Amino acid sequence: MTDRMTGAEDSGQREPGDARDVLTGQLTQIARQALEASRPLATASAEAKNAALRDAADALEASTAELLAMNARDIEAGVARGLSPAMLDRLRLTPERVAGMVSGIRKVAGLPDPVGVILREWTLPNGLLVRKRAVPIGVIGIIYESRPNVTADAAALCFKSGNATVLRGGSEAFHSNAAIARVFGTALGRHGFAGAVTLVPTTDRAAVPILCSLDGLIDVLIPRGGRGLIETVVRHARVPVIKHYDGICHVFVHRAADFGMAERIVLNAKCQRPGVCNAMETLLVDGAIAPAFVPRITAALHASGVEIRADDAARLIEPALAGAPRPDWGAEYLAPILNLRVVENLDAAVAHITKHGSRHSDSIVTGDHAAAEKFLGAVDSAAVYWNASTRFTDGGEFGFGAEIGISTGKLHARGPMGLEELTTWKYQILGSGQVRG
Amino acid sequence: MTDRMTGAEDSGQREPGDARDVLTGQLTQIARQALEASRPLATASAEAKNAALRDAADALEASTAELLAMNARDIEAGVARGLSPAMLDRLRLTPERVAGMVSGIRKVAGLPDPVGVILREWTLPNGLLVRKRAVPIGVIGIIYESRPNVTADAAALCFKSGNATVLRGGSEAFHSNAAIARVFGTALGRHGFAGAVTLVPTTDRAAVPILCSLDGLIDVLIPRGGRGLIETVVRHARVPVIKHYDGICHVFVHRAADFGMAERIVLNAKCQRPGVCNAMETLLVDGAIAPAFVPRITAALHASGVEIRADDAARLIEPALAGAPRPDWGAEYLAPILNLRVVENLDAAVAHITKHGSRHSDSIVTGDHAAAEKFLGAVDSAAVYWNASTRFTDGGEFGFGAEIGISTGKLHARGPMGLEELTTWKYQILGSGQVRG
Repeated sequence: MTDRMTGAEDSGQREPGDARDVLTGQLTQIARQALEASRPLATASAEAKNAALRDAADALEASTAELLAMNARDIEAGVARGLSPAMLDRLRLTPERVAGMVSGIRKVAGLPDPVGVILREWTLPNGLLVRKRAVPIGVIGIIYESRPNVTADAAALCFKSGNATVLRGGSEAFHSNAAIARVFGTALGRHGFAGAVTLVPTTDRAAVPILCSLDGLIDVLIPRGGRGLIETVVRHARVPVIKHYDGICHVFVHRAADFGMAERIVLNAKCQRPGVCNAMETLLVDGAIAPAFVPRITAALHASGVEIRADDAARLIEPALAGAPRPDWGAEYLAPILNLRVVENLDAAVAHITKHGSRHSDSIVTGDHAAAEKFLGAVDSAAVYWNASTRFTDGGEFGFGAEIGISTGKLHARGPMGLEELTTWKYQILGSGQVRG
Repeated sequence: MTDRMTGAEDSGQREPGDARDVLTGQLTQIARQALEASRPLATASAEAKNAALRDAADALEASTAELLAMNARDIEAGVARGLSPAMLDRLRLTPERVAGMVSGIRKVAGLPDPVGVILREWTLPNGLLVRKRAVPIGVIGIIYESRPNVTADAAALCFKSGNATVLRGGSEAFHSNAAIARVFGTALGRHGFAGAVTLVPTTDRAAVPILCSLDGLIDVLIPRGGRGLIETVVRHARVPVIKHYDGICHVFVHRAADFGMAERIVLNAKCQRPGVCNAMETLLVDGAIAPAFVPRITAALHASGVEIRADDAARLIEPALAGAPRPDWGAEYLAPILNLRVVENLDAAVAHITKHGSRHSDSIVTGDHAAAEKFLGAVDSAAVYWNASTRFTDGGEFGFGAEIGISTGKLHARGPMGLEELTTWKYQILGSGQVRG
């Protein structure tokens, strides 16, 4: 993927240092405007924010033709650049996808406002009333790739939670993103929230490290995309980052598992939608039941079109696996490919997940309560399951109404990240003249 | 302050690149051991952790003479290096300070265990039970200066909350810190928690950027010290950082304030302990009452030995301020020095705090409910007060039992940071074979 300055006026052939200074100035100015916009937004009423969001949804709906036209330019450029069919599909807007984006915004408008909620309230012995109250974080930077719908989804969630947003989308979706952000931002401006949503008007790759350095203006960065993008952000960031790394998810079929349940969970975790982060990449089978379970699950997975990459123990048990390729325990296949490993026992399964997992979602299938509790305690992942598919790690499934992503970090947000995780808190302390003795 | 390799065996005159590789290997090894130690600790019972902490307290108490002897070496070196009396005082251990450290650990042992607490629990329409449960963060790196008691305080809080700790203290306290960490760690080792607390055995300044780069091993860094140290950590960190910047705290005396209450709060916020981060640095007085209040508060502050640095408007009102030095709105004096500014109104006070404050603690004194609510909403600080002194921003005062610091960041922890903020969560999802449709 090559990145080009396509949107900025200063895209000429300057020398690099000079161009970078200009870009830094431009991005600093955008972040400063976002910070200014964040202040009235932080204390705006739920009604005012929801009205603005509904107007933005209406405006995007009315602009469907324009969005499709701008998207066609990106698709054309993508074809010329030789993007893969999968990438072109992610990039493409259709009337249905625009409608989905619009209804998503309306849904966010209908969710409860997370801002102002009193998280805890207590009175100190000296009579001071302490209120821990949810407040917006401030300015959120979203750095993402490919899918233009992220522009509207992320902006709506950040706005609903009272935050201003600086968006930096992928170069391949630049015209689509710019059109969405312009329509969205203009609608917010009509409600007094000008500057609350801004797309960085350049595809210059240098914009990412510059955004990462704007501490004091941007409060948090949320990178959404491949490992390379996220590592770039982490490497350059002086601003806090909430990481959304890949999902290397496991299902462990314990010796006390019900085979029918295990088969349903394994097939669902692998096949229901293989290209997402909460799909299973590695199946671990307890050695005690492997001779019975491995042939059964191999047949079922093969029947579902899954390619199995098996370890030696599994090959010995099931002749159909003899020619299978070697597993790559650290791979996120995002495809109907599955690693299969026979492990000695529960401890070995936990050790495998600790070593190779990405702290996303992992499941144990067992009828043994003590084994399940041990797994749920020892596996250090955002979501740990007992007798269920890993595919439920999702803000919508969890009942959050929406999600901005699934954090694989442990600080501030872990797992599905909804509106609550887009807030922080302040302590409001109400006194009657108290001083400290 | 010069840093020297005093504790490491590889402190000789190697070439820098080589020495750095050795140090990187050594620190990586320490962090890896901490990660290993963090796993059993994460699921240890409250009883086991508390017994280990009480043993550590007993062991430190029994080692008082040794700690004082090691501290005497640091003091001697500090005198030779020309440390200021204030720094030597912070560095010095006395039998009373060791006793205070010991009783602090016993107090932490007596606090409720934050780990395992069910923060929220709900059932999805498909029957899945979702439990959001508090778990330790993992490995916490504490980078601090001067006071040797931080070694025991931080280690106790991190251990109680189920985290392994890598400590990196100031070079001037190296022998004291090493002795405390050795006694503490040995006691934990007797309870099966070897490696849970480790002091970096070198004062090489290069250790800080190396620790900052150990993502995947260290989960979070908490720097405690001056702005220079914290900025160094932020600049180098690939690991998330919870920042504890300085406190530039304000009291705003609104036109509807009770003058007696305002005077008590101002004197307390400035004078009760000027050298701490929640002490006031700037007093803002509403222009509408300035002619009456400025002379009164000037007299009271001068009587308390406070040097006032006043703006022009205050000088015009109070002749005693005519020769006062100019205020520095961005200074954290940590001394009996106070900036004084007359502002036009509430909005101007908020604007001043927004521009010059450090998002720590700010207070309004007023009898006007609407003005107070506006201030509490608009001032974007960790703690905002109405009719109370800023000095209450403290984990102990808030009833947290203890604190590891006061976060001026907004992510994960904001304001006083107690045991709860040393945990994260995981979702444990209990099913009966659910798969996603």
